Formats: sequence, structure tokens, C-alpha cells
Amino acid sequence: MSLLIKNAILNGQNTDLYIKKNLIDEIASNIDRDADVVDAGGKILLPGLMNGHTHAAMTLLRGVGDDMPLFDWLNDTIWPIETTMTEEDVYWGTKLACLEMIRCGTTFFNDMYWYWSGSARAVNDMGLRASLSGVLIDLFDAEKAAQQQKSIEEEFELSKTYPGRISYCIGPHAIYTVSADSLRWAYAFAKSKNLNLHLHVSETEKEVVDCLEQHGLRPVEYLEKIGVLGDNVSIAHAIWLSNAEMEILHRHDVGIVTNPCANMKLSAGVFPFTQVRELGIAIGIGTDGVASNNNFDLFEEMKFTALAEKSRTGDPTTAAADVIFDCATRNTASIFSLNCGAVKEGKLADLILIDSHMPTMVPGHNLASDLVYAANGSVVDTVICDGKVLMEDRSIEGEEEIIARAKEVANRVDKPMTTLLN
Amino acid sequence: MSLLIKNAILNGQNTDLYIKKNLIDEIASNIDRDADVVDAGGKILLPGLMNGHTHAAMTLLRGVGDDMPLFDWLNDTIWPIETTMTEEDVYWGTKLACLEMIRCGTTFFNDMYWYWSGSARAVNDMGLRASLSGVLIDLFDAEKAAQQQKSIEEEFELSKTYPGRISYCIGPHAIYTVSADSLRWAYAFAKSKNLNLHLHVSETEKEVVDCLEQHGLRPVEYLEKIGVLGDNVSIAHAIWLSNAEMEILHRHDVGIVTNPCANMKLSAGVFPFTQVRELGIAIGIGTDGVASNNNFDLFEEMKFTALAEKSRTGDPTTAAADVIFDCATRNTASIFSLNCGAVKEGKLADLILIDSHMPTMVPGHNLASDLVYAANGSVVDTVICDGKVLMEDRSIEGEEEIIARAKEVANRVDKPMTTLLN
Repeated sequence: MSLLIKNAILNGQNTDLYIKKNLIDEIASNIDRDADVVDAGGKILLPGLMNGHTHAAMTLLRGVGDDMPLFDWLNDTIWPIETTMTEEDVYWGTKLACLEMIRCGTTFFNDMYWYWSGSARAVNDMGLRASLSGVLIDLFDAEKAAQQQKSIEEEFELSKTYPGRISYCIGPHAIYTVSADSLRWAYAFAKSKNLNLHLHVSETEKEVVDCLEQHGLRPVEYLEKIGVLGDNVSIAHAIWLSNAEMEILHRHDVGIVTNPCANMKLSAGVFPFTQVRELGIAIGIGTDGVASNNNFDLFEEMKFTALAEKSRTGDPTTAAADVIFDCATRNTASIFSLNCGAVKEGKLADLILIDSHMPTMVPGHNLASDLVYAANGSVVDTVICDGKVLMEDRSIEGEEEIIARAKEVANRVDKPMTTLLN
Repeated sequence: MSLLIKNAILNGQNTDLYIKKNLIDEIASNIDRDADVVDAGGKILLPGLMNGHTHAAMTLLRGVGDDMPLFDWLNDTIWPIETTMTEEDVYWGTKLACLEMIRCGTTFFNDMYWYWSGSARAVNDMGLRASLSGVLIDLFDAEKAAQQQKSIEEEFELSKTYPGRISYCIGPHAIYTVSADSLRWAYAFAKSKNLNLHLHVSETEKEVVDCLEQHGLRPVEYLEKIGVLGDNVSIAHAIWLSNAEMEILHRHDVGIVTNPCANMKLSAGVFPFTQVRELGIAIGIGTDGVASNNNFDLFEEMKFTALAEKSRTGDPTTAAADVIFDCATRNTASIFSLNCGAVKEGKLADLILIDSHMPTMVPGHNLASDLVYAANGSVVDTVICDGKVLMEDRSIEGEEEIIARAKEVANRVDKPMTTLLN
């Protein structure tokens, strides 16, 4: 099982790349080895983009409850609908998500959603790399907590039956939906099994105000106090951070995934990118679920990350294109301890080819700038993940069936909406 | 010369649409008339998007001088390069721009750039509708002013030789680059010839501070005092507006074109969308030139407009998807006094077909939301402008030559860059 990419452009040079099993084995100007061949025909070779925070199956709810405040949207719209979803619904929703991600050059995503097995089946079938969280939302109810802990233990066992590109992660939702006891349990479980832990932190100012009122501490201070911060932990959003909280996150080597579209769309605030970066905290980029974005296009999300920060700080020189591109590739790899995010020998073969003849890539003065500010996912022509071709010449196997089945499922799932919104 | 679109989806219903010359003649469920046929095959029919503020030929400078402050970028990078451009360069740069705009479903743009004839030739060849400004930047030099006024008179005469879809507009750049005398001359000329006038106003806080210092008035107050506001005038940016200035603009029926990407990228500020809209001022959306954006995708620009405003105000319910879609269609039509921007009998046949099988359009719960928040220009399948098909099945005649020639020209034009930036 080997793959040879011929005639790609890497760092401005024509190059070949040989993949052995799922690793980049050789990068050189003219490789002649026995393998299946992908002729890149002068397309630009890049690492696949990495999506640090998603709720994939929410594709089924794209466009549901837009233009609403966060807590109304969650409590009155999204959560009631989600109670009606089945494992099979999550499978089709996640397949649609994977299809969209492959189309826009994403090779890894870090997900948090109900029905772990539904997501895992979909990712397995679609060929992507993913970190899939078992969800904890105990709502401070001990019985629910026990039930969910049991599910997580079972899912973790199930996860061992999947290939290495699918990893199990622990996903306690947030401090306002998960008890301190469950958070501690989750952290201990993750540590004992060598797993990552991922949660939402300080997405809204309300979360900080409530935490100060309840615990006399800000959210990151609270998490440190109950002992659930470590280098296997990453947090999403992290908008409302004090300087002291940034120091705490840095000290515990916690990575942060920023989700600018969802944050702007829900008026949650703007992530303090420059300060966090200057401290040396790893920053990844996520799209969040598409019900609050409403797509998985990391090219667009890179642009939002850069422009939101330039706008927030009043400094157009900050969050420059190359810095942002690193966030969506090597930084996310480092946050999730993955051996990918760069085109180098010995790295996992998660790669994309970009069509440099798309108008947004022309004339091509500055690649990082073209990728972050001009392109969108439609410039991606070919996607390789874990050494296997998932899309070539923009064609993905089974696309039509996925679109049709996802529409069917979404139309059924969406039913409670009519009652809820009217 | 007639065209029949069969099997399109309009407002959720299957429909046919008959175009006679360049006008929508009939919309009905089953039209049987003699005409060239476009089978929409269930694609979604929409008005073409309208780009209210561009500098089209700057495609040649895409990615040049990114991550720089506005005035350094203009003075040290862009303007020196522009002095080396020829009419033929502008022709190819504008052709590349038109190609990109057609690809993302734009059927009209309002442009301001040097070498009017270069832009006009390109737009004429590409088939789009455009308002093309003759530029006035006299830098307070009477000789330059006289020269440019003469050019404008000549260009205006030349414009009469072009088809109706190309209209001549007067484009004094801004109050800090054009003398009051030239502004008054421009306004009088526009009025006498029944032309639109378009200029940049209050793009930066510095412009306001400088104007207050020089004239004791804010920019819009100054423009009113020298008598150059009227219903044929539209302004771009308008970020730093006082309430009194908004009232003045409303009183004179001046339209505003907002350019959120360029404004965020250059840290210029955020347009007060909600206040301006509540006053009843018409708001259009523009991409600005791609050297400060860096693309012409109005789908992306609609999303930035909505999300920037939700983020600025802290109110996720403001700048809702349907409001934003109107800005990029019917509002821009009204600002530029054009009979288009809606799919209605009697309107100009500027239309697009959207592929509803693209993952970002699935499942399709809410069309306005999908268009503004989820889609990008790659969902556009077919573009019709002035009754003629410019793109069908994503294919545009002459695309390869335009890409190749624009690259050639850009590589030559870009030469001074190396000296300037190193």
C-alpha cells in the first residue's frame, strides 16, 4: 500500500512525494518507485487543514434558529431537537459533515457530540482523522453523571476496535453543565487512559459572571482549583480571559481552539488572539458546529480569525497570514498530539492539493496570503488522509447518496422546530 | 434574442422564466415559447449579486502588501506600483476580476480605477453590468485637476459608444485627495449629465480628525457645506459617522456601501450598520479591491457584514440573513438606480442559478441563512447578465487565457514591489 504524488509544487518548487502506508516516506524532485500514482500536474501541495472544534452531526440543523442569542438558541431550539436524534441520524449528519470537510481540504477534526458510535462509524467510512469526544453533560444530577460515565467507559472500549486515525477523547461540555465531581472523574479517566480532554470555556461573559458568583473564581481559576488542567487538555472559545487566567493556561500547557465565526454570529465576543499567542499558548482554529457558523470551511475560518483580531486590536499587522495558517495546521496537530500538520518526511500523510488556476489564487504573489485572505475551500482539488485518496479532481465517492440521505434525516429531525418556533 | 429557463426553483416553487432581449418577460410554472433553453434542473434561481464598491484591476496586486496599515499600504506600496500600470494592464486585471465575479455569481459591480477605457473594454468583453468611475485625485494641484477633468469629459463621450449595461460614473477618490473645487466640479458635471457620483468617506478615524482640524467640520458635514451631496451620490465605507452625519446623508438620500473585509483587514473600524439602516439609508455591500480583501466573493462579504455587526453590537438578532441578502441585491440596485436586484417580470435579466446539492446548501432548512452564512461563491452554477449566459455548469468561455495573461501582466507590474518592500 503506497502512493506516489508526482509534479506537485511544494514551497515554490516542483516535487514528488512518496507515501508508504500512512506516512510520508520521501520528498524529492524525481521519485521513481512502485506505487499508485497521483499526478498533481503543478498543483500546490499543503498539509491538510485541521479543525480543532466541531459538533459534526449538527449539519442536520444548518440554518435552524439563526439570528438568536446563544442561550435561547441552545435551550429553546437546539437541545430540544437533539433529544429526538438517533444514533443513525448522527451517522448521516456526521457523514455530511465529513463530505463537506473533505471538499474544503480538512483532514482532521476534533468533535463533541451525542452517540459516539454514530460519529465513529461515519468517520471510519469517510476516511478522515478525528478526535471524537464522549460527551458529559450531567446538569449536576448524580444519576445522569453515573450513566454518562458508564457510557464513556463503554465507548472507550469500543474505540479500540477502530483504526488509529480515530481517537477517543473525553468531552465534558462546560463548567455550567458539568459538576466538579464529573469534571474530576473525566480528568482522572483521561489521564489513566492517556486521552485528551476537551471542553468549552469562557464562551460568554455570562459564564464568567456566573462562575464568579458561584465559586468566587473565574472559569479557568475554577478549573485549576478542582484540578482538571493539564497538557492533555484543550479548551474551545476562551474569549473572556483575564491575564491571570492566560498565565494559568500557559503554566498547564493547555491549548486553545478559537471559533471566530460562531463567536461573532452569537455576539459572544472576540478571542484575545495576540495576547494569548505572545504568551506562547498554542492556538488552533475551529469552525464549531454548522448550526452556529454555518459551514466547515477552514479557509473562511482562517480569514475570520485574522480579520477579527486585526479589527479587535486596531493593528493590521497582527495575526498575519502565515501565523494564521500555522494555527489551522501544525498548532492544532500539537494541541491534539498528532504527528501531522506539515509536509515532512516521517509525518502522517494528511495532504491536500490546491488548484492554483482558480481566480482567487491568481496571480499568486503570496501563497500564505492567498490561502488565508483570498481562497475558500473550493480551491481544493485532491485530499489524502492517512495515506489514502479521499477526493481526486473534486470527486468524492458516494457523495450523492450522502446528500440525499442527510436531507431525508434532516427533514425528519427538523420536525419539532415548527412547533418550537411558531 | 430570447432565453427560456426551465425547471428552476424560485421561492420554493418549480418555475420557468422567459427572457426577451435583456428583460424578464414572464415567470410561470410551464412556459412554452420559442427560445434558447437553459435547463435549471431544480437549481435555485436568484437575482445576481451586486458589488457596490470595487477597484477591479487590483486583482493584479492580490496579496501584495498584506498585513500593513492603510496609509503605509497606499503610499508606500500600492500607489507607486499603480504608476507603472498601462491601459492594457488594467484591461487584463479587470478581465480577471470579471472572471472571478462571474464565478461567484456577481452580475454588477461599481468600480473606481485608472484607465477607464481599459476597464470598459474588459467589462464589455466579459458581459457584466458595471458602473465605471472616471477617477479624480488632484492632490490639491490645479493643473492635475484640469487634466483629470478633461479626461473625464473625454471618457464620458467614449462611454456613449458602449452598451447600456456599462454606465459612466464620476469617482472623486476622497476629501483628503481631491480639492473642494474639483469635488464641486464633479458634482456639477454628474448632475448635468445625469450620472452617479461615488467617493470614499470616513474610512478611517484619521480622516475625520484631519477634516475637523482643517475645516472645523466632520467629512459628511464638509461635503454638505461644499454642496456635493444628492440622491445621485453614494459613498463607500462611512465607518466613522456621527448621528448628525447620518441625518445629513438620509436627508440627501445618499446611499452607503459597506466593505467589512477591507475595513477589518486594515483595522479601519466597523460600519454602524444597524443605526444607519434604522434611519432608512440604503445600504449596499462591496468587496473593495482584492488587494485589501482579497477576493470578490459577495457570499463571503455578506457573512462578514452580518457577523461584524452582530459582534460590534453584541446583539445576535441584528443584521439578519434576509436583511443582508437584500443589501447585496435590491438595495445596491436602488443605490445605483438600476432596474435589477430581484427576480420579477419587467426587471433586467441579471440572474444566477445555485446548486442546491453542494454540501453547504444541505439540508436546506432556510435559504437566506444558507446563502449568507453557509455558502460561498462556489455554489453558483450558472450566471446570466443582461439576458445572456456568461457561465453555465461552472464553465466560462476564455477562462484559461484570462488566467494566463493576467499572471503574465501581474508578474511584470509587480516588479517595483521587490525594490519597495526589501
